[in-house]
Amino acid sequence: MKPGPKSPPELAPLLAFGAHPDDIEFGCGGVIAKETRAGRAAHFVICSRGEASSHGKPAQRVAEAKRSASLLGATVEFTELDGDAHLEVSSAHTLELAGIVRRERPGIVLAPSLTENQHPDHPRLGQLVRDACRLARYGGVKELRKFPSHAIDQLFYYAVTPEAEPPGLTPVLIDVSAPDVLKAWTSAMAAHATQAAARNYVELQLTRARLRGLCAGCGHAIALFPNDPLLFDSLAAVGRGARRF
Amino acid sequence: MKPGPKSPPELAPLLAFGAHPDDIEFGCGGVIAKETRAGRAAHFVICSRGEASSHGKPAQRVAEAKRSASLLGATVEFTELDGDAHLEVSSAHTLELAGIVRRERPGIVLAPSLTENQHPDHPRLGQLVRDACRLARYGGVKELRKFPSHAIDQLFYYAVTPEAEPPGLTPVLIDVSAPDVLKAWTSAMAAHATQAAARNYVELQLTRARLRGLCAGCGHAIALFPNDPLLFDSLAAVGRGARRF
Amino acid sequence: MKPGPKSPPELAPLLAFGAHPDDIEFGCGGVIAKETRAGRAAHFVICSRGEASSHGKPAQRVAEAKRSASLLGATVEFTELDGDAHLEVSSAHTLELAGIVRRERPGIVLAPSLTENQHPDHPRLGQLVRDACRLARYGGVKELRKFPSHAIDQLFYYAVTPEAEPPGLTPVLIDVSAPDVLKAWTSAMAAHATQAAARNYVELQLTRARLRGLCAGCGHAIALFPNDPLLFDSLAAVGRGARRF
Amino acid sequence: MKPGPKSPPELAPLLAFGAHPDDIEFGCGGVIAKETRAGRAAHFVICSRGEASSHGKPAQRVAEAKRSASLLGATVEFTELDGDAHLEVSSAHTLELAGIVRRERPGIVLAPSLTENQHPDHPRLGQLVRDACRLARYGGVKELRKFPSHAIDQLFYYAVTPEAEPPGLTPVLIDVSAPDVLKAWTSAMAAHATQAAARNYVELQLTRARLRGLCAGCGHAIALFPNDPLLFDSLAAVGRGARRF
Amino acid sequence: MKPGPKSPPELAPLLAFGAHPDDIEFGCGGVIAKETRAGRAAHFVICSRGEASSHGKPAQRVAEAKRSASLLGATVEFTELDGDAHLEVSSAHTLELAGIVRRERPGIVLAPSLTENQHPDHPRLGQLVRDACRLARYGGVKELRKFPSHAIDQLFYYAVTPEAEPPGLTPVLIDVSAPDVLKAWTSAMAAHATQAAARNYVELQLTRARLRGLCAGCGHAIALFPNDPLLFDSLAAVGRGARRF
Amino acid sequence: MKPGPKSPPELAPLLAFGAHPDDIEFGCGGVIAKETRAGRAAHFVICSRGEASSHGKPAQRVAEAKRSASLLGATVEFTELDGDAHLEVSSAHTLELAGIVRRERPGIVLAPSLTENQHPDHPRLGQLVRDACRLARYGGVKELRKFPSHAIDQLFYYAVTPEAEPPGLTPVLIDVSAPDVLKAWTSAMAAHATQAAARNYVELQLTRARLRGLCAGCGHAIALFPNDPLLFDSLAAVGRGARRF
Repeated sequence: MKPGPKSPPELAPLLAFGAHPDDIEFGCGGVIAKETRAGRAAHFVICSRGEASSHGKPAQRVAEAKRSASLLGATVEFTELDGDAHLEVSSAHTLELAGIVRRERPGIVLAPSLTENQHPDHPRLGQLVRDACRLARYGGVKELRKFPSHAIDQLFYYAVTPEAEPPGLTPVLIDVSAPDVLKAWTSAMAAHATQAAARNYVELQLTRARLRGLCAGCGHAIALFPNDPLLFDSLAAVGRGARRF
Repeated sequence: MKPGPKSPPELAPLLAFGAHPDDIEFGCGGVIAKETRAGRAAHFVICSRGEASSHGKPAQRVAEAKRSASLLGATVEFTELDGDAHLEVSSAHTLELAGIVRRERPGIVLAPSLTENQHPDHPRLGQLVRDACRLARYGGVKELRKFPSHAIDQLFYYAVTPEAEPPGLTPVLIDVSAPDVLKAWTSAMAAHATQAAARNYVELQLTRARLRGLCAGCGHAIALFPNDPLLFDSLAAVGRGARRF
Repeated sequence: MKPGPKSPPELAPLLAFGAHPDDIEFGCGGVIAKETRAGRAAHFVICSRGEASSHGKPAQRVAEAKRSASLLGATVEFTELDGDAHLEVSSAHTLELAGIVRRERPGIVLAPSLTENQHPDHPRLGQLVRDACRLARYGGVKELRKFPSHAIDQLFYYAVTPEAEPPGLTPVLIDVSAPDVLKAWTSAMAAHATQAAARNYVELQLTRARLRGLCAGCGHAIALFPNDPLLFDSLAAVGRGARRF
Repeated sequence: MKPGPKSPPELAPLLAFGAHPDDIEFGCGGVIAKETRAGRAAHFVICSRGEASSHGKPAQRVAEAKRSASLLGATVEFTELDGDAHLEVSSAHTLELAGIVRRERPGIVLAPSLTENQHPDHPRLGQLVRDACRLARYGGVKELRKFPSHAIDQLFYYAVTPEAEPPGLTPVLIDVSAPDVLKAWTSAMAAHATQAAARNYVELQLTRARLRGLCAGCGHAIALFPNDPLLFDSLAAVGRGARRF
Repeated sequence: MKPGPKSPPELAPLLAFGAHPDDIEFGCGGVIAKETRAGRAAHFVICSRGEASSHGKPAQRVAEAKRSASLLGATVEFTELDGDAHLEVSSAHTLELAGIVRRERPGIVLAPSLTENQHPDHPRLGQLVRDACRLARYGGVKELRKFPSHAIDQLFYYAVTPEAEPPGLTPVLIDVSAPDVLKAWTSAMAAHATQAAARNYVELQLTRARLRGLCAGCGHAIALFPNDPLLFDSLAAVGRGARRF
Repeated sequence: MKPGPKSPPELAPLLAFGAHPDDIEFGCGGVIAKETRAGRAAHFVICSRGEASSHGKPAQRVAEAKRSASLLGATVEFTELDGDAHLEVSSAHTLELAGIVRRERPGIVLAPSLTENQHPDHPRLGQLVRDACRLARYGGVKELRKFPSHAIDQLFYYAVTPEAEPPGLTPVLIDVSAPDVLKAWTSAMAAHATQAAARNYVELQLTRARLRGLCAGCGHAIALFPNDPLLFDSLAAVGRGARRF
């Protein structure tokens, strides 16, 4: 189940992991929309069907996720780990995700942050993905021999809610203000109708992005948290400073 | 006393502040060498003549600084605040530095970090520069009316020694491995002969940069600490992840 | 210049300090509106006339501040320290503010947070107010003999912008969702027309409060940061837990 | 095994979890005594019989815990997870504790803090309880269908020893100075005679509470650490500031 | 005014700075008692006469300080900076204290911690002392030419109250349990009768030290916070691990 | 499999744990060399044979580890937990390591730090060792009855790479500059030829130690991170302050 549109050579594919069918969209859907519009292939791996949540049946949730990924220009696959609200950190899961990393060979990986927040599954999946990106590099792991080893370029964490933003990491902000990007993101979030009906998730995320945008001097922005320091060839490449007020 | 070589339109000039004649070179000289080689204009403002140090007379120190700046392709000016080892944080100093910011109109400003370290002047100058960059923006400041207001693009802190690295800020790393860059930096540091003779400053800085480089998978790298979150247009622009081990 | 409406005995007066004519309103105006509607007397001390800002003349700024305080049900006085964008931390200023604390005898004091942010005056005033609250207690301070010593009940910091929120302090959230409170706050911010015209300050603050409110399960909320741990007589008194998502 | 005395309508029941028979008493017994004296129902869930400790047989430990809970006015139940010194974080345990939360329907939950300290079981139980409080809310969790979903009001962490106090959370202090409260707490701690004989646990806890009390200007105080920001309707409700020196 | 008893060659003299006549005793008097009993010379520099405090006249305070220092086996001098509750950070003060460091040539320096606490003078004096220890090393400082430059061995911070303990520094604990040490410390604190009568300062400090001692497995202990990492020749020299519970 | 050379009575044996055959040497081999040269017995417990790594077969890795331990004067044993890159935190592993602690009865224990870094096994082993040191003390743990309970003196963490250095712990530095110590350490690292050939591990570690040494004023130094505060009998015992620049 490879991403449909191949990335151009200069844009290594993006691989995003979510613990529940809506986590990627709510946490960083605007970034996905921006990247796919720029031609980068994006693939989602969703690790439960949201079966523990108060609203929506698993079949609905899966259908919503497929529609939402499509609105963002991404492909999607589901993998069953321990089930919604039952996720545990284990080597078996790490190896399973590392196998996906090797198969997809992404440049960029997105995962939920490691900071404890409203759902115990979020930081655990973050930890599994971080470890999976490491194991994908190690040549001697028996269970991973089906695909050659692979070193990703960068791992970024997204935060599903404000409390999940890691306090000790300086974020990078991605400008998602372009009208088509914002519209695709909003549609993708709204596609999770079972959740959007229950709580103001869409407003929450747009409010967060607007606050970041207001502070940074653009319309809307989404914060990502890099797992490693960033290496640049020169200062000309180091983005823009983000402070308007 | 404008920087000699004008920056090309796409490279806004760089303005670096140092508390003593050798701080810029020891703290981030490799970055300066890289930027000037790429065509960016760089100008140094040195706020004392090093007259309190155990080694070297002020006249020697000034001569060394001029030679060193020249080796890095930068211009240099001296401004007297309270004198070496006497620096205080005051509005008068902030205004003086803000006037220089307005006059030079840099895109990028470099200043010593705010973290307490071996010399009390370092974090104080960092604070003065940070505040000066703010005051340079405010249209109503009477003392600054000689030049129009100016908003810089980005403020980065450099750390003169490892203990000055701010613990709560994620660094960006600049690759300074190119042989000509490394050579220019080393020469510029060695030009401060009165200091290099007294302690292993040159080895200290090259060891730091080598350690950063080893960790990041390049030859040598220098860490800068952005004052504000970084805003990028897309993930393609967010550097490379820096972890080799 | 005492607060007009006396507080009822059970509500000790509130004293809020601002570095510029609009800081209190933008940082915590909703809290003020809520408290004065509950009958608590509120008095503002504004420490400059905003003369350094790019927009608005001092006379306009003062008029806006008076109108805004009135909309919030607060009285206001101006005190000249070093002038806008020139504030320094000095004993003379601390003593001046401590004198005001003794004269007003507040139960609650509000001050800008100590975290560095877009305006150097903000954290400096925060530091002056914190120290002033201490000096107001010391019986032996000669310059303060005009009024008897006074110990406030609590000092809370407000953050003018998100970057000013102190990273190491757990906030308390005040629910400002009541329509009349929100309306009074919005009007008070809008009364600073010279500033509101230049940047989206009003939207910034309402977006912040809406984001806090969405997370806390109420309409809008404002975060305050207590200077000291909070002491309660029982768990029944410890507010509500604020997590909706 | 519901709490004996029903809470009055305005005081939702309190549910406290302990990894060992004496953890709740040593960590926050004074708070329990205060709450039950105010009429709030309190129920303890103890997750081992202390069988790994150097002193006391399990049967003794259980008897001590029952007597101690009784002295505090609380009811108690034991649940076997992995056994003393063997606790692991698992979904099965989380679900078991979530079931208890649903059955008891508490307003307030107390759990050991997440900070690593002298006993590995403490932070693990804290994590299990925190996650259990979340799972108790989710309508779709199959294993929990015996009871309707339940959202607690607040989760507070207690620290069994000073090193367990979470460094990044601002505590709330509960005044436990009333003679009958202090006496009940002391008796409840002393009831764990097998432990109190081995080390100065009682003195340790009274010394901690006295130090907090001295700093806060009351006799004795116990620190609790809220998992979420606190939401208040007005400043009048935000306790007292706790600084006497 | 050199310390009376000369230190033996292997014990470089100790120099302790206090902002008020009782700060050294309350913050670390037990350490002083222990060191002087071991033969180390100790000298106190007190930077005000406590004239702003609510209790005690300056002449009384000075007499108490002299008696207290004598009970601890230390010599004492007073130096007037800005006066009690008026202390500012300035180069002039730093130079004055650096001159004392050069004159006394201590191995160990003790200063109040840099963490904001109940008295604004405390962290400011800490900053002045830290900077003074640096300036004492610099050969070129004109104002200091009366004495040769001097590099101290170590700077430790003491905390006058618990809130002054620096959150980011791991303490070293000094065992002050020996009965004669504890008695000398208690007497020295009690000698500040004007203060001890007003608040429970003596109990506060003994309670702190007892809590540290209980946790560390000794009777009483005082925490000091080293300004620099500690360098040891071998693990045999790295004290004892301090955890009893 | 006890350490060959018995420690003299005043030097309790050292027990070091490594997740992979080269972790101890790369992380703190210089400290081991120094301690064994001073007569302290050192024993290594290696918890995998490195079978997941890209370079070297398990048999080679084991042979390298044996040779390297021998060069450092240490004995070595291997224990199989979950296998390289498969390590999980479990009670069974903790008990197994606690059994080794009881058998060896070390004074000092060294373990990889708890900070997430390039290999997921590192912090997990650190956590297992920390917990094992606790369980070794508890008299009632059934699985550990083969040996009497044992309380270690101190637990120190080592960092295999710079990113593994715990940000919140102040390190102690051990001077490893003696030529024979440095030579033994370098040889021991080079003995891991399969790894040293693949990446610049030896240079990385020597560069780290040289940087620490330059900052501390000695040739080379290695940082260890104590798990508990350090308790000293007097200031004379508290090492040297480590700041040369």
